[in-house]
Amino acid sequence: MTVQVNEFLASAKVRVEAVLDRVVPPTSHTPGTLHEAMRYSLMAGGKRLRPGLCYAAFEDCGGTGEAADWGAAALEMVHTFSLIHDDLPCMDDDDFRRGMPTCHKKFGEAMAVLAGDALSILAFQVLARAGSAPAISVLADALGSDGMLGGQVVDIQSEGKPCTLETVDYIHVHKTSALIEASLELGALLAGADIDQRKLYRDYGRAIGLAFQIVDDILDIESSTEELGKDVGSDVENQKATYPAVVGLQESKKRARELVDQALALTDRMGVRGPVLADLARFIVERGN
Amino acid sequence: MTVQVNEFLASAKVRVEAVLDRVVPPTSHTPGTLHEAMRYSLMAGGKRLRPGLCYAAFEDCGGTGEAADWGAAALEMVHTFSLIHDDLPCMDDDDFRRGMPTCHKKFGEAMAVLAGDALSILAFQVLARAGSAPAISVLADALGSDGMLGGQVVDIQSEGKPCTLETVDYIHVHKTSALIEASLELGALLAGADIDQRKLYRDYGRAIGLAFQIVDDILDIESSTEELGKDVGSDVENQKATYPAVVGLQESKKRARELVDQALALTDRMGVRGPVLADLARFIVERGN
Repeated sequence: MTVQVNEFLASAKVRVEAVLDRVVPPTSHTPGTLHEAMRYSLMAGGKRLRPGLCYAAFEDCGGTGEAADWGAAALEMVHTFSLIHDDLPCMDDDDFRRGMPTCHKKFGEAMAVLAGDALSILAFQVLARAGSAPAISVLADALGSDGMLGGQVVDIQSEGKPCTLETVDYIHVHKTSALIEASLELGALLAGADIDQRKLYRDYGRAIGLAFQIVDDILDIESSTEELGKDVGSDVENQKATYPAVVGLQESKKRARELVDQALALTDRMGVRGPVLADLARFIVERGN
Repeated sequence: MTVQVNEFLASAKVRVEAVLDRVVPPTSHTPGTLHEAMRYSLMAGGKRLRPGLCYAAFEDCGGTGEAADWGAAALEMVHTFSLIHDDLPCMDDDDFRRGMPTCHKKFGEAMAVLAGDALSILAFQVLARAGSAPAISVLADALGSDGMLGGQVVDIQSEGKPCTLETVDYIHVHKTSALIEASLELGALLAGADIDQRKLYRDYGRAIGLAFQIVDDILDIESSTEELGKDVGSDVENQKATYPAVVGLQESKKRARELVDQALALTDRMGVRGPVLADLARFIVERGN
């Protein structure tokens, strides 16, 4: 990662974490345990990639003011909601996330279901502050049965079965890319971008989102526990639908590079944040090397 | 129930069910099982009280057009989302709902969690069609950790413990009234009502919502399985925080009547749908007799 993109992401992270701390009720507010569980998972760290992408597109489209804060915070909350529910015993049954006990291991299953629910609802409460019904549509469309949740369902249903490339593409595009696309489109939309401009960021998001997930599949096979903070090879163990399982490691790496090249070509048409978004695209493949 | 309110609710039910059938993707659309699970719980019947209240307030405020349809459908979807998650093994662990196997008994736990998630997201997708960010706020505020989900958390945490009237009030106001209040306020808001008008419907909703839940507590003790379609005395069995458990049956009935009287007084200030909303308030206590 270049110094520039490192600094951009670090500053976006500080900014969105301050917003998150402000909008999630304190643990002193009833029901305290719920707010504690929400904060536990939300504040567990991470690169805050989705907020970073939202801020980048927002600034690239000339946006100013706090509208992007509502978008960025909402994105991180729905991302965390999806992780909490994905980790549940009835789903992936994961005990650790980012090196810490998962929400249900720490607070019990009922509280984890409710903390996920409450984060997804709070995301809409917070995003509504931007006063844009179209922004609500962008986020909800990315999450629904034709977006992230659709990907999660097909992912679960594909476990332990032979899988086609078409199915893996469906899962990755829905489960991962949809929210990354939405992160960029939200930033553009909240800055007042028109439909054509929004499509540019959306297309870039689709490409890096899919590349990101393919690289994730590759890392799951190649990396060590220390680097990832989760059980290595858990995809293999769970017989998950992955790119390498369907087309092999070499072909997966080639596909990820192609997608990043597509994304890079799109950044040529962007403005002041184009170089940062280009570096981000490169970073995605590089973390797989 | 009078003929007038019966006809009003029946017509609201037909209207909202047609909207629901249109906005939930068909089971032929991937992922089919998810859409089947969403439809199974959503189309399981019920009085569609919340959509009815939304339509009534909308018409009372002179609203016309389809905006109320988006509100009504969203309300029924979030209500169903809450029922699906409440029924989960880690929550109330109920096997039957409205005389049918609960969503997780029929489709498995993972699919039930995801069907609930997808219905809550779809509610925001659909409500966003009305183009009103304040409407999104009203719905999300009613559902979040300071609304319905807060009530659900405190309800779970109070099980099997001695309970104060203050706690039972908190649970009922948050878990039940919040969404009923929002049903009325959404109808008024979508019709273009101002803040003062919205407060009138909101206050009425608070009163009938709380009365509704107190009568529900009473019915749980007094009714037979045939009438309710769920296990009788399940609140007692689960040692739930209820009004009769804290203040006794007679005092609970008195409190429900007082709340309905409050609601009736408010309907005097309403318009063409005032009589229907008055009848609805009376119906709520009468079903307890």
